[in-house]
Amino acid sequence: MPSTFANSPFMRALKGEAVWPPPVWLMRQAGRYLLEYRATRAEAGSFLDLCYNPELATEVTLQPIRRYGFDAAILFADILLVPQAVGQTLTFEAGEGPVLSPPLDPEGLKSLSLDGMHDQLSPIYETVKLLRERLPHETPLIGFAGAPWTVATYMIAGRGTKAPADLRVNAYRHPGFVEALIELLTEATTAYLVRQIEAGVQAVQLFDTWAGGLPPELFQRFCVAPVAAISAALKKDYPDIPIIAFPRGAGPAYRDVAALPTIDAVGLDVSVPLQWAKEHLAPHGAIQGNLDPLALLGEEAELVRAVEAVLDGLKGAPAIFNLGHGITPEASPEAVSALLRVIRNA
Amino acid sequence: MPSTFANSPFMRALKGEAVWPPPVWLMRQAGRYLLEYRATRAEAGSFLDLCYNPELATEVTLQPIRRYGFDAAILFADILLVPQAVGQTLTFEAGEGPVLSPPLDPEGLKSLSLDGMHDQLSPIYETVKLLRERLPHETPLIGFAGAPWTVATYMIAGRGTKAPADLRVNAYRHPGFVEALIELLTEATTAYLVRQIEAGVQAVQLFDTWAGGLPPELFQRFCVAPVAAISAALKKDYPDIPIIAFPRGAGPAYRDVAALPTIDAVGLDVSVPLQWAKEHLAPHGAIQGNLDPLALLGEEAELVRAVEAVLDGLKGAPAIFNLGHGITPEASPEAVSALLRVIRNA
Repeated sequence: MPSTFANSPFMRALKGEAVWPPPVWLMRQAGRYLLEYRATRAEAGSFLDLCYNPELATEVTLQPIRRYGFDAAILFADILLVPQAVGQTLTFEAGEGPVLSPPLDPEGLKSLSLDGMHDQLSPIYETVKLLRERLPHETPLIGFAGAPWTVATYMIAGRGTKAPADLRVNAYRHPGFVEALIELLTEATTAYLVRQIEAGVQAVQLFDTWAGGLPPELFQRFCVAPVAAISAALKKDYPDIPIIAFPRGAGPAYRDVAALPTIDAVGLDVSVPLQWAKEHLAPHGAIQGNLDPLALLGEEAELVRAVEAVLDGLKGAPAIFNLGHGITPEASPEAVSALLRVIRNA
Repeated sequence: MPSTFANSPFMRALKGEAVWPPPVWLMRQAGRYLLEYRATRAEAGSFLDLCYNPELATEVTLQPIRRYGFDAAILFADILLVPQAVGQTLTFEAGEGPVLSPPLDPEGLKSLSLDGMHDQLSPIYETVKLLRERLPHETPLIGFAGAPWTVATYMIAGRGTKAPADLRVNAYRHPGFVEALIELLTEATTAYLVRQIEAGVQAVQLFDTWAGGLPPELFQRFCVAPVAAISAALKKDYPDIPIIAFPRGAGPAYRDVAALPTIDAVGLDVSVPLQWAKEHLAPHGAIQGNLDPLALLGEEAELVRAVEAVLDGLKGAPAIFNLGHGITPEASPEAVSALLRVIRNA
């Protein structure tokens, strides 16, 4: 059988096979820790210029595949392109990270609309098409979007924030506003991912970076339900496209996401004990994770020990090796090579 | 039987009885949301002046007991008094929060010592004595300390930080340094809590605010093991003093803390589903939590709904009603009254 993405280790793991050694990719694998990324980023201009430039976004997506031969590529884009596409102003300020202005309030919600969304996002769909032409046949391409709760967190806080309290306060103070916003984002995210699938991605991941620290009732309403709705809508028309949910920090409530019949895999944050995940999550689908990205900044002996611990934890389950959060700009490319050596010799 | 703290609802719950309605206290119940606190704080001078002034620290500890009749009082102090007592310089800067200087490194660790610790902390022990004289007989007094991992996080970052990455990087880069620091803090914390018990507290809580987001192996070594060591040392000499651990964000690993034979109760962060806690944690001891403190900032109808959800979740278990994190300065005293009405009518 010729090697294609359909029978690649990554896709087989997502379909429930305990592939060994596990396929591996890293969140933010196309990123600042790579010299070649920094060069292309400088050529592009701003971070947003890079996102919206299909040639250069394709190039940075391919860079880690060329260098390391990861088992999957992930589209280079940003989860905040969706709020921009529905009408909020997005800028990236030096040292500040992303700024969405003005911070969304009930009045501002009225001016948002999905009407011009696909025009604004068409360069992203173009990047997907180019990538599918230029990637090795055997390398699946992952599309992605932010999950509604996480995107709403940024929209309401207005800027990258480590303490996403603003949206939670709104959920108690203006529950109707938060419901309407989550509904709009659920629709927009579904439409965005449909276009990514039509353009050629083999799987999608929903990043719910701020799903942690939520009371169970809010988690069910605003994290589980929208992810269930988006994945059900996608599965209806694209039953063969696996969907990975990454509800970072969900704790014991990871079970509720893994158990969704339309979710094929869950991405695990660094804190999830893999024995627990094998027992409670793997019966529902694949597990993906969860090396601490900071382990890439330490002594090599500690890194090897940490990678081996994750491998031990994943063994026997349908599993994909990944980090528990994005790789940091401070990681060295050599540390990534060391990580891959350990995995590939497993 | 006369009403004393020994047969108070709080102590009975900690001994495994499913008291109903549950006893209630709130983390940071002596704090800025109360006008009378702000007045005493202004009288004291700086925040640290207040911590080290037994008369005024006693006063602010008593204020929420007078106003609301909470089922337990908690000593007014700060978890960063311990690093100061072992030799790091602590200041509170306006708008900055606490600053420990210089940020601790392997060289700085050598200059820390437990020798002058109790002299520095003697006003705290004096506060405990005054409180035990002045509190109602039936109101137990909770002593506390930060757990070693959390205190170390601040010591290494140098300032209040929302992203406690520095200590984790050190754990991979200088594991011997982190081990030695955790060991020193385990010893200091034990000695500090022994003195609080000798001075008159009825229970102690270990705050491990930054226990979340840690890889399981680091969590076991640097959160579970030190808490096990401290609680075992205390139980040896004070078997009747209940110990509450609060490993915020521990997720499924809450089980490992609850299962420690020397831990009587676990404080739950807002994200822990109470059905899960009843099944997996309550068999090992009491559960305490976990209303979202931000629910106190919302519409009263939403607050009532949130309080009722927590009550439903706690029912049937040995349980103490609390927040899942400290009350915020923005909470209104009236919202706390509403919360108590719902609980006391349960």
